[in-house]
Amino acid sequence: MTASPFDSVMLREHLSDPQAARLFSDASEIRAMLLAEGALAKAQGELGLIPETAARAIHRAAREVAIDPGALAAGTAATGVTAPAFVEAFRAAMGAPEHAAFIHHGATSQDIVDTALALRLRPFLELTDARLAAILAQLGQAAERWAELPMAARTRGQIATPTTLGARIAAWGAPLLRARARLAELRPRVLVISLAGASGTSAALGPRAEAVAQAMAAELGLGCPELPWHAGRDGLAELASALAIQTASLGKMGVDLALLGQSEVGELQAGQGGGSSTMPHKANPVGAETLIALARLTSRLSGAAQEAMLAAHERDGAAWTLEWLSLPQLCLASAAALRHAEALAGALRPDPARMRANMDATGGLMMAEAASFRLAQAMPRPKAQATVKAACKAAVAQGRPLAEMLAETEAGQGIDWAAELDPAAHLGQAPAIARRFAALAAG
Amino acid sequence: MTASPFDSVMLREHLSDPQAARLFSDASEIRAMLLAEGALAKAQGELGLIPETAARAIHRAAREVAIDPGALAAGTAATGVTAPAFVEAFRAAMGAPEHAAFIHHGATSQDIVDTALALRLRPFLELTDARLAAILAQLGQAAERWAELPMAARTRGQIATPTTLGARIAAWGAPLLRARARLAELRPRVLVISLAGASGTSAALGPRAEAVAQAMAAELGLGCPELPWHAGRDGLAELASALAIQTASLGKMGVDLALLGQSEVGELQAGQGGGSSTMPHKANPVGAETLIALARLTSRLSGAAQEAMLAAHERDGAAWTLEWLSLPQLCLASAAALRHAEALAGALRPDPARMRANMDATGGLMMAEAASFRLAQAMPRPKAQATVKAACKAAVAQGRPLAEMLAETEAGQGIDWAAELDPAAHLGQAPAIARRFAALAAG
Amino acid sequence: MTASPFDSVMLREHLSDPQAARLFSDASEIRAMLLAEGALAKAQGELGLIPETAARAIHRAAREVAIDPGALAAGTAATGVTAPAFVEAFRAAMGAPEHAAFIHHGATSQDIVDTALALRLRPFLELTDARLAAILAQLGQAAERWAELPMAARTRGQIATPTTLGARIAAWGAPLLRARARLAELRPRVLVISLAGASGTSAALGPRAEAVAQAMAAELGLGCPELPWHAGRDGLAELASALAIQTASLGKMGVDLALLGQSEVGELQAGQGGGSSTMPHKANPVGAETLIALARLTSRLSGAAQEAMLAAHERDGAAWTLEWLSLPQLCLASAAALRHAEALAGALRPDPARMRANMDATGGLMMAEAASFRLAQAMPRPKAQATVKAACKAAVAQGRPLAEMLAETEAGQGIDWAAELDPAAHLGQAPAIARRFAALAAG
Amino acid sequence: MTASPFDSVMLREHLSDPQAARLFSDASEIRAMLLAEGALAKAQGELGLIPETAARAIHRAAREVAIDPGALAAGTAATGVTAPAFVEAFRAAMGAPEHAAFIHHGATSQDIVDTALALRLRPFLELTDARLAAILAQLGQAAERWAELPMAARTRGQIATPTTLGARIAAWGAPLLRARARLAELRPRVLVISLAGASGTSAALGPRAEAVAQAMAAELGLGCPELPWHAGRDGLAELASALAIQTASLGKMGVDLALLGQSEVGELQAGQGGGSSTMPHKANPVGAETLIALARLTSRLSGAAQEAMLAAHERDGAAWTLEWLSLPQLCLASAAALRHAEALAGALRPDPARMRANMDATGGLMMAEAASFRLAQAMPRPKAQATVKAACKAAVAQGRPLAEMLAETEAGQGIDWAAELDPAAHLGQAPAIARRFAALAAG
Repeated sequence: MTASPFDSVMLREHLSDPQAARLFSDASEIRAMLLAEGALAKAQGELGLIPETAARAIHRAAREVAIDPGALAAGTAATGVTAPAFVEAFRAAMGAPEHAAFIHHGATSQDIVDTALALRLRPFLELTDARLAAILAQLGQAAERWAELPMAARTRGQIATPTTLGARIAAWGAPLLRARARLAELRPRVLVISLAGASGTSAALGPRAEAVAQAMAAELGLGCPELPWHAGRDGLAELASALAIQTASLGKMGVDLALLGQSEVGELQAGQGGGSSTMPHKANPVGAETLIALARLTSRLSGAAQEAMLAAHERDGAAWTLEWLSLPQLCLASAAALRHAEALAGALRPDPARMRANMDATGGLMMAEAASFRLAQAMPRPKAQATVKAACKAAVAQGRPLAEMLAETEAGQGIDWAAELDPAAHLGQAPAIARRFAALAAG
Repeated sequence: MTASPFDSVMLREHLSDPQAARLFSDASEIRAMLLAEGALAKAQGELGLIPETAARAIHRAAREVAIDPGALAAGTAATGVTAPAFVEAFRAAMGAPEHAAFIHHGATSQDIVDTALALRLRPFLELTDARLAAILAQLGQAAERWAELPMAARTRGQIATPTTLGARIAAWGAPLLRARARLAELRPRVLVISLAGASGTSAALGPRAEAVAQAMAAELGLGCPELPWHAGRDGLAELASALAIQTASLGKMGVDLALLGQSEVGELQAGQGGGSSTMPHKANPVGAETLIALARLTSRLSGAAQEAMLAAHERDGAAWTLEWLSLPQLCLASAAALRHAEALAGALRPDPARMRANMDATGGLMMAEAASFRLAQAMPRPKAQATVKAACKAAVAQGRPLAEMLAETEAGQGIDWAAELDPAAHLGQAPAIARRFAALAAG
Repeated sequence: MTASPFDSVMLREHLSDPQAARLFSDASEIRAMLLAEGALAKAQGELGLIPETAARAIHRAAREVAIDPGALAAGTAATGVTAPAFVEAFRAAMGAPEHAAFIHHGATSQDIVDTALALRLRPFLELTDARLAAILAQLGQAAERWAELPMAARTRGQIATPTTLGARIAAWGAPLLRARARLAELRPRVLVISLAGASGTSAALGPRAEAVAQAMAAELGLGCPELPWHAGRDGLAELASALAIQTASLGKMGVDLALLGQSEVGELQAGQGGGSSTMPHKANPVGAETLIALARLTSRLSGAAQEAMLAAHERDGAAWTLEWLSLPQLCLASAAALRHAEALAGALRPDPARMRANMDATGGLMMAEAASFRLAQAMPRPKAQATVKAACKAAVAQGRPLAEMLAETEAGQGIDWAAELDPAAHLGQAPAIARRFAALAAG
Repeated sequence: MTASPFDSVMLREHLSDPQAARLFSDASEIRAMLLAEGALAKAQGELGLIPETAARAIHRAAREVAIDPGALAAGTAATGVTAPAFVEAFRAAMGAPEHAAFIHHGATSQDIVDTALALRLRPFLELTDARLAAILAQLGQAAERWAELPMAARTRGQIATPTTLGARIAAWGAPLLRARARLAELRPRVLVISLAGASGTSAALGPRAEAVAQAMAAELGLGCPELPWHAGRDGLAELASALAIQTASLGKMGVDLALLGQSEVGELQAGQGGGSSTMPHKANPVGAETLIALARLTSRLSGAAQEAMLAAHERDGAAWTLEWLSLPQLCLASAAALRHAEALAGALRPDPARMRANMDATGGLMMAEAASFRLAQAMPRPKAQATVKAACKAAVAQGRPLAEMLAETEAGQGIDWAAELDPAAHLGQAPAIARRFAALAAG
């Protein structure tokens, strides 16, 4: 592999995402920097701050020239930022030095790099939201379809009481509804240009700096920030956290799919499953595991993005570099997780027979709560619970069903325990939960 | 110290916060669990699900009984959660077993523990928002006051171009405006009761489970979640990230204060400064350093809260425990940071003379950008930049002011360089930025 | 709870450790600071740097006076470090100002705080090593005992091929052997005094500074560092990482115990299991889950300790404070994990019948590798694998045992597949691995 | 950029390392997997477990065939691991199916992937150690050279007392001596083959599994582990932590270089410094900042490697994938940091005049400790400290040198304060520390 699996030819079909990867390529970054410079020049030309012919020439060139990323490597190593070498290369590629002189006029490297980032985060957020919507649509349909399919709920690794597959699917989807809400809320805080000049005062842009920024933002379809954000990186940290939280929600689905797909559980398969080089019978939960791994990574990288906020003064080379080291791969990881999740959400294959068998295998123990409540109709609740607890113990010790043990208790006489302890009769709100989620997901 | 400085008698005045600490004490948690049980009983009584006399007795007892945290220790160790021992202790403390039997009716441990958490997060978020508002008020006034006080901006650790203290203060405050917005957005996702029963289906609450939840939520002044969140912990992770981001914003202020207070810079003091046991002349930037340390901690703990989302099935003891290990101390750390920041924001003492002296000490080099722009009025920008770069090099080599070197260049003849390079004439948008922030902070 | 469960009366029996907690209390820290000051004075008295009577008086007082942690709170808040207030309180408590004046002579706060930390880390590391040894002894005996007990190995959540319980236990124990080795290696790098004065040059200790340090170290039973470590915190970071790695090894055991104790697996119980407030039949894997949660926390805190190494100059208040915020709780978490692990390792209760039943339930599929190898005795391996893969598919599709399917293939004629596919005949090196580990653990 | 700057053509000269990157390329991984398979076949051939001609053919082919990483992408995506597609491609590339059938005989994917990792970690650790040695050599010479060059020590951001540049350099180098020791200690725990078969029992390798492993390890020049490590990943976590700690030590040097190179300090430059696109006079501390950023990243990734230890059962796809997502980039980051540090350590350019000027600028305040000690020759130390503290306050208030203020005190009469407060006379052990380090670094 390479330093990052997201960039490995060998691993990227597995762990990366082609659509998002296109946004975080060298070429894409250069293209976005060109657009930023073009929009700046256009705005300055319109406002009469630079010659209009130069502005038009720069704007046109920004869409036409090709700049080789490799040619920027040495310059980037020298200055620690891509923009100076990029500006030089842009000028050279454009020719027409009398016009090219007005490239990057009054801007600083960070203006261009940050604006270029925002330009790529816009389609990235659209991609993210579209995939969340697609996953929600699939989960919503699945929740509706299996709203009443009984299966065991598990708490702390043990079979607890009945629920339905639809309710479980609702638990995967509910956080994604909130994830979309968060993305909508943060968009205006993140999708903004940067144009604050060398030290955040826009001094070199002259008295009409604000008008230039407004025009540039309009040209690019980004917001214009009320205050400079060179050293105020909370927007990016918020994005990082939101992506990590969203990925963790998918990771939770991965955890459940991996557990429900265990050989001994076998209640739910999703996707194809990976083969083993030595064990031909296996169908490994590759997609589910990938969701978990990606979520654990993003939970690390989001902290790095938060820490990159601890930036010194008006610009901090170390903190800024830490963003570059963490944010792009966090975006890629979240996109890869969405891709895997979408594939899994659309390929759920429950095994109702195994679900029923696993519930039956508890010998009715999973219905202990229901038994308590039944007995509590005729005795204080603590006493009912104690009676059931004793019956459970005896059932385990003697290897007999709980229904039989209860029928032998004094309090349990005359009750049709088989019917009382039927899981399908104790689904509680599970079907309603599944349908409420389905409605929200459709909405 | 203790395991956590937040709980140390010796360190807590320094590193903790008394108001927030009260919300995260054993006693406070028990009180909140009592309120949750009381509200549940009241709701069930009103809806006729449990006897009204029992409901009233439980509701009253919930406000009156005292439960010793130490008495819950053994039971908590046995079950891994406080609620079972708490319920038992509540019943014993209440007496009246015929009523007490209806305590916790249909609920599960997690319902009570989570609701009790939400009950304490409500005043915690109010405290947080009030402090953010107080800090913003102070920073707003300071930004207004020093909107035009010139000082050097620094980028990558080096003096860059002029800015003003007001603009710098705006950079500290702007993220706090967004922090308040985030808190307002997440409140409805976090301040909700939990009432989903053993496995999230509310089965033991019967067909009117939803009505019970609504009534309980109304009684407690919390929201009623649309879908159960036993295993959907994104709300808490979002809170953790928002607090970490907010604390990192304060940490950035701490970084700047520590740097500006260095012996060799000396431009800004804040608060009293700590003495040294062996160096009586020092005034250590204790508050600023504390902000930094707390921010680095919260950036770690927020990731743990994200990872706690990777919960198995309907309840995951490991993931839930990880929340307890990370979220309360994260809340305390953020509160301590707010306390320190408020003290610092209200005690800023700039030294305009040092500000001026530090700018002067660059021999005009910090005005190189301004010089480029002046020269570019009469020549292409790249040529102007090259001329200035050469003059800068010569100025450094010969130890002479840039103004002199420029006056000796061909292009620089006849220009009043002393006036052209006066920092106060090149503040750009800095005063406007300071005042825009002041207006936003006041709003 | 409190900010940290380790300090909560309600939670500490569950999540903390009484023996380790004693070492990280306010009182213990004050006691250790007193010992450090006493040893310093004694060394200086012997070398004639301070009056011998003063030295003796300080040394004696250091063992006798009592200092109230609460009395240091205000001073600590003012200076950001406990030592100045402590020294003042020590002088006051000692009386005899003519002697007390020589307390802390030539030392700086960090010398005392760091030495006091090393003094407590010594018994902490002894406790840690003793518990690791105890766990290894128990795991060694268990591995020996069940060296040949067949059970299914699982890879990627699915039943793979047979192994033995002893081999599985060896997998838990092997990393603990390495954990002990690491602790032995790091001890001399961590258990050292600090005595470098205000800025690391020991200037105030005079020309015999080295001799003082040697004598002080000898008195305290700690090493004397070759070079000052005020700002070289790699030793503590290494300790943090070693503890996190050790805790993660215990966490892996926790993961396995939780999985093997699932209702549907039921092959291994450990300890008592926690009850549920609403589901009386459950026995939650509380100890195993606790190991997992603690491991995830320590993996976060160890990074904070690494980052505390990024200390500015000769002393960095922010970085040092970050140590206090992370290291003590990391130590507590690791101790709590050892306590839980020791309890679990001594209470393993396998269920051989369930182990056998789970293997049988695969219908022989878990023996596919063995079948491949058997067939490969008479055909190329890829062809053998393909044959078995097809047979597996058919077995799954038709719900029939693999042995039957293989017997029907051309290549499988005449082979006693029931015998060939008996798990107990395919344990490979598992028993040897178990016994090798048992020998190493005993050694 | 790409997902990771380490893989970006544009950024990798700046943030990656060409030598280390070669070890973590797709091609390098495939080469190492080939070597692992070749060594396995050779060992099995020698022991008669597979036909000798097949073994020889495989061993030869392993050194000759070329496998296109892109051709493995689809297969890797399907199974979640590279090995199955790799084995298939190897067989196809080798031709001679009668021999190729014995490729990968008895091994499992993880055996090959893990052994291939160890094979690349060996040269990586050699590279690391060689660079550490080179940095130490440079720092040792520098410490020796400037052992007596006086400069201010800073604690908590403020000028404290005098030290020397040599002593400061020793503080950077001392942790690197320990870093080398740690690497030497962990090598035998990390540089081992893996050969444990499908589930860690080596069942498919037959009764001579141990002999095969020994022979394979010998062929590859790696160790043979006493116990399988499929699910015991503490060795890799230890490596990750050691690299993170080593990188944090370099990061501390970066912090100091950035601070000492600030415009207002200007005492030490290292390397060339990066230009600014708009501020021609600047020389940004690019290398130093890069060290800091890389250290903060590695402190995050090392925790991920620790958490990857929490692996379920005999193989955990999620935990293993998390290793791939974190370890390679951690290795690259550490290598890049070494590269930058080596460049900086060999290019230190102190400015003794600025060092002196900064000390003088405190007006003698930095010599307060020395003044206290001088006065304490004739009065109790607390009184001496109080006298000096008062003099310091007066000096600050009146803007006069401390020497003058002291001369005016009663106790200070008749003392040559100018001589007493000369920093060069109060270097303490700083020169000795510098030389001791130089000797250790040379050793």
